[in-house]
Amino acid sequence: MAGNSIGQLFKVSTFGESHGIALGGVVDGCPPGLEICEADLQIDLDRRKPGQSRYTTQRREEDAVKILSGIFEGRTTGTSIGLLIENGDQRSKDYSKIADVYRPGHGDYTYWHKYGIRDYRGGGRSSARETAIRVAAGAIAKKYLKQFHGVEINACLSQLGPIKAEQFDWSEVEENPFFFPDSTKLDALDEYMRALKKEGDSIGAKVTVVAKNVPVGLGEPVFDRLDAEIAHSLMSINAVKGVEIGDGFEVIEQKGSEHRDTITPEGFTSNHAGGVLAGISTGQDIVASIALKPTSSITVPGKSINTQNEAVEMITKGRHDPCVGIRAIPIAEAMLAITLMDHLLRHQGQNKHVNVQPGPIPGQAE
Amino acid sequence: MAGNSIGQLFKVSTFGESHGIALGGVVDGCPPGLEICEADLQIDLDRRKPGQSRYTTQRREEDAVKILSGIFEGRTTGTSIGLLIENGDQRSKDYSKIADVYRPGHGDYTYWHKYGIRDYRGGGRSSARETAIRVAAGAIAKKYLKQFHGVEINACLSQLGPIKAEQFDWSEVEENPFFFPDSTKLDALDEYMRALKKEGDSIGAKVTVVAKNVPVGLGEPVFDRLDAEIAHSLMSINAVKGVEIGDGFEVIEQKGSEHRDTITPEGFTSNHAGGVLAGISTGQDIVASIALKPTSSITVPGKSINTQNEAVEMITKGRHDPCVGIRAIPIAEAMLAITLMDHLLRHQGQNKHVNVQPGPIPGQAE
Amino acid sequence: MAGNSIGQLFKVSTFGESHGIALGGVVDGCPPGLEICEADLQIDLDRRKPGQSRYTTQRREEDAVKILSGIFEGRTTGTSIGLLIENGDQRSKDYSKIADVYRPGHGDYTYWHKYGIRDYRGGGRSSARETAIRVAAGAIAKKYLKQFHGVEINACLSQLGPIKAEQFDWSEVEENPFFFPDSTKLDALDEYMRALKKEGDSIGAKVTVVAKNVPVGLGEPVFDRLDAEIAHSLMSINAVKGVEIGDGFEVIEQKGSEHRDTITPEGFTSNHAGGVLAGISTGQDIVASIALKPTSSITVPGKSINTQNEAVEMITKGRHDPCVGIRAIPIAEAMLAITLMDHLLRHQGQNKHVNVQPGPIPGQAE
Amino acid sequence: MAGNSIGQLFKVSTFGESHGIALGGVVDGCPPGLEICEADLQIDLDRRKPGQSRYTTQRREEDAVKILSGIFEGRTTGTSIGLLIENGDQRSKDYSKIADVYRPGHGDYTYWHKYGIRDYRGGGRSSARETAIRVAAGAIAKKYLKQFHGVEINACLSQLGPIKAEQFDWSEVEENPFFFPDSTKLDALDEYMRALKKEGDSIGAKVTVVAKNVPVGLGEPVFDRLDAEIAHSLMSINAVKGVEIGDGFEVIEQKGSEHRDTITPEGFTSNHAGGVLAGISTGQDIVASIALKPTSSITVPGKSINTQNEAVEMITKGRHDPCVGIRAIPIAEAMLAITLMDHLLRHQGQNKHVNVQPGPIPGQAE
Repeated sequence: MAGNSIGQLFKVSTFGESHGIALGGVVDGCPPGLEICEADLQIDLDRRKPGQSRYTTQRREEDAVKILSGIFEGRTTGTSIGLLIENGDQRSKDYSKIADVYRPGHGDYTYWHKYGIRDYRGGGRSSARETAIRVAAGAIAKKYLKQFHGVEINACLSQLGPIKAEQFDWSEVEENPFFFPDSTKLDALDEYMRALKKEGDSIGAKVTVVAKNVPVGLGEPVFDRLDAEIAHSLMSINAVKGVEIGDGFEVIEQKGSEHRDTITPEGFTSNHAGGVLAGISTGQDIVASIALKPTSSITVPGKSINTQNEAVEMITKGRHDPCVGIRAIPIAEAMLAITLMDHLLRHQGQNKHVNVQPGPIPGQAE
Repeated sequence: MAGNSIGQLFKVSTFGESHGIALGGVVDGCPPGLEICEADLQIDLDRRKPGQSRYTTQRREEDAVKILSGIFEGRTTGTSIGLLIENGDQRSKDYSKIADVYRPGHGDYTYWHKYGIRDYRGGGRSSARETAIRVAAGAIAKKYLKQFHGVEINACLSQLGPIKAEQFDWSEVEENPFFFPDSTKLDALDEYMRALKKEGDSIGAKVTVVAKNVPVGLGEPVFDRLDAEIAHSLMSINAVKGVEIGDGFEVIEQKGSEHRDTITPEGFTSNHAGGVLAGISTGQDIVASIALKPTSSITVPGKSINTQNEAVEMITKGRHDPCVGIRAIPIAEAMLAITLMDHLLRHQGQNKHVNVQPGPIPGQAE
Repeated sequence: MAGNSIGQLFKVSTFGESHGIALGGVVDGCPPGLEICEADLQIDLDRRKPGQSRYTTQRREEDAVKILSGIFEGRTTGTSIGLLIENGDQRSKDYSKIADVYRPGHGDYTYWHKYGIRDYRGGGRSSARETAIRVAAGAIAKKYLKQFHGVEINACLSQLGPIKAEQFDWSEVEENPFFFPDSTKLDALDEYMRALKKEGDSIGAKVTVVAKNVPVGLGEPVFDRLDAEIAHSLMSINAVKGVEIGDGFEVIEQKGSEHRDTITPEGFTSNHAGGVLAGISTGQDIVASIALKPTSSITVPGKSINTQNEAVEMITKGRHDPCVGIRAIPIAEAMLAITLMDHLLRHQGQNKHVNVQPGPIPGQAE
Repeated sequence: MAGNSIGQLFKVSTFGESHGIALGGVVDGCPPGLEICEADLQIDLDRRKPGQSRYTTQRREEDAVKILSGIFEGRTTGTSIGLLIENGDQRSKDYSKIADVYRPGHGDYTYWHKYGIRDYRGGGRSSARETAIRVAAGAIAKKYLKQFHGVEINACLSQLGPIKAEQFDWSEVEENPFFFPDSTKLDALDEYMRALKKEGDSIGAKVTVVAKNVPVGLGEPVFDRLDAEIAHSLMSINAVKGVEIGDGFEVIEQKGSEHRDTITPEGFTSNHAGGVLAGISTGQDIVASIALKPTSSITVPGKSINTQNEAVEMITKGRHDPCVGIRAIPIAEAMLAITLMDHLLRHQGQNKHVNVQPGPIPGQAE
């Protein structure tokens, strides 16, 4: 299928360029009867919105989402939901300077070679601006999962450059502009970001996303394993270069006796697996982490070429995030929600009559 | 779609359990005119085959693949290719002991809760045995990519437990039973594996897979980015818990000025991106790494429960690999090949008439 | 996949209810470089627009389409195209009377039982109003097919109730409000429709759609045959109850010696097959016909029940087409265009390097 | 997706050529717990088998199907089911005569132009022989639908050339070699077929397929309507040139007051719609008819060309059915079953929690 859709039974299709008229999309397959309104979607859009703090870009994006269909008297009807976010901030900035230059680390070079034409204004379709619609669509999935299955999905910034979270206190995450779970590191983060801004440089980050109360049984063998589709979903976020489930790359140095999670009549006693065994959810927390590269839009000069294959020097001016990981928090939550939602519908489609009794009590051991 | 298929234009669908009658599959969408025969597929199957060295399981699997359709007078016809591998080694071993026990770290628990029924013999569908068909299908993709586009795909074991490859000499990889690119570490590996065997334990591993001469332009915005689909593809391999593209998790501590790859009239001067920018191939080497967990089939006793929710102690006897990463080499190559092949066809479907001129010379800077 | 999308490489996803805020959709996979603007789409939307003649509903729909993305400097960029048609005519009519009644012949009963909730205003998602977006999307496909491959797609009304076209003069079709190819029948049609209006009844129709200059080779064995996907595409239009390719149901009484189309060095001498052999286009005209049922929105009283399972009598008031076949002309063209476009991209994806020489001259024998 | 698969949640992928080693396929997404064995599949394969009567080809095909996976202790496990039918009758007949000739009315011409290579032996992939696997896969769907939902699917030959069934007595269908529901026409059929054989010609046919006890609510708006997907499914059968739902092409001359089915508190009083309203099943019988063209494999000489574009005269010798409609009975049932099965799973995936109360009693009025 063409690339701007994700999901099978719960499917999200999107459109929109950074400096076009609007972003939008179609959310297809949402079950009927879910109470939802624009304000429900706006909460996450506002968490993603730039200009929220001095650590993110000061570009003003209104990001006011409109629901155009699929809702009747406040509830979903089971038909496709149209979403629209008008681009308020389409200022007629002069982009002609970068029109025939490939900014290093961006999609300019690849889009040009793929298509032979390129909307160079602000990155066009390759801009992270498209993730606004993902967040809106994900908010629908999150609300459904919460209301009908008690699933809760939360992400946080677990590392920014050299600064790692050493304590995980989820109640801290929404209390600071970094979405950081370790309040003892907030001063260090503040200091680090100030220095970075002075340099005109950017930094990578790690985001961890967790889903609680996921039903056991989600995921399909063998190619559509839940972890494989989560990897797809999270890696599709701009700037992501790595995805881990559970212990991730730490398993390389683990022994089998250490890694395998013991099952007791009271449930699992550990969660090295990250909530997925053989591609199917165990009922424990789904835990995934992603690595986000430092944005290439920096004021440190860089070398590149233009479409005539001539060497040029580049400085990216404008309003950019020094760490795109911060704003990726609601995006990671949205993508995990979309994938879980799709698998939930697929699972109950095939296995509606399955009724396993008796069984252990899944759940994260604390 | 149901979970046993991968790909859109080049699509692989598989079936088969560890101890069933046969494994098989359908490879759909292979372009016509490719010279291919069973021996071409057998090469990679033999590289994956157990019992190849004392470091892998001694279970004998013949893994002789038959091509049942789609080939005429030695060449593909464009129609679907049927593949079959009969399970020669279906010994009537007594599996009744594990019939109602969930082996920790395996799919027993999740399959049971998903389906309410489970082929417990050797893991059934969740056994890594199914990857034999992936390897056969991947060999078709590899041959096509090589012959029509000069693409070469190779994987190696880049780390086993604490032992990392520090030199990457690809010519070494096929010369040792570990597929290890650093011959100075072979003694250490040998020693480590002997000790492990004595303990009855297993160990994790890292596998790195590289595709050379990939055309620029493969990958679709925004959800079907090439890296997202590679992540999907590689994470769908049994035991994989993490996927990286290019610098992967190292980007967390990189600055933008350091990460972005400079483009010169002669090509890129580095490849931190791993050959993908904004989800589209740059023409540089595609570089991906995966983390494989230690197998849970070990003789170290473990705790678990049975389907009646009673505590039990488990020892997995039988012939098992102490490091599944070793045999994953051809599987990783196969999955990368399948994904690249699919994207190649999708790209030329949409962009057949694109002809970008002039342009820089893509390629990996050495 | 969820049901509001069609196509694989050229994919159209839509949303919108009859009396909602707007209709819209995403057209994904259009090749880059096609010159297109809103006016190109508006031509077909205006042909579909109600209130065009006294034979169609007088409801005023502006149907002004906006292109929200995917176009840069007048040309497609290869990224997804967002489409929007605002519902201008959302008058606050009182629909409460039909809120809990199932109008016979409509989707009221089935939507209610499927979803347990229903946007009853004007039929909601099941209204033919959604076809406006199909027409807009189809116009993009039509323009591409015409410009890059010379394909021309035209439909006409070949029968209305008992009145059949006996002459096929395509130049007449756009000259009369019935899109009828036989000008000798125009008076009869006019008379028939007047009488029907007086009765308050409606009538069925047959629409024939033809694509000229279709490349040979489109269509995939065995399930995605071109004719199978055309049947899908055309049967998905509201009110369609039958689809024929070529001679269609006449083949039942044909003999093999009569049906098979002779091939000569100059081309085919007949086209009973309708341009498709074994599911693949022959290069001859693709000819398809559809049967459209009479609309159930009539003023003749009918019997039905309400959601409390009580008997009720229904009269559908309001502005309705006595023959929905008339306005189906551009819809049939659009759906055929979408399907051909998708298959063109799929074909050239898999078979880019195929170059058959020498060969006969395909084409419709006159 | 590539063309050799059908369905989303219940997906069938097939391979195999007329004169290849074997036919086979993968049935993915069958719910777990269904009791099924090879004998269940063989029943329908035997109904399709040639050589059953003097009215069908005398070619002997064993068509013994093997189930290779997905079943454990007699029940489906929810994993993919591998099917295999070895081609017993691969006699080394000399096909070189037709190797470079395009038989009129066959896929020779189109396959050659699509792929540039062609397995000419017996039609290769375009032979109706591939439908054997559809029948096997359909038998699984039929058994599931019957057992878990009481759905019964039956087809019959409703017309052969000029001879129409005027009485529909389903109990007659399996009692005569024509699968004809009107026993008063059996002599006429016998006489007609004898004359046809003497001429060396073939004849078209109409097949009607009916599903009883279909749950209300199957089908997705707007492109994946149940009738649209049934049209796809049935039109994908070899030789089919037309598909009707309910009254089909008769609706052209029907008035709205006549066509719409009245709903009463006791159910529908007629079924002009054929069990589908607005693309969703009503709970009434699903009724579909197809037109099958006369086979082009006849001994009446025909004109054609070869791959060098030279005129040739053709006579198709060998064992061929004079009316392919007869053997299409189980194929039509299989395809309808596959489509209903897929939609059942999709419906309960999205709408698991829907519980509409109270409601009318759907069902076919007699």
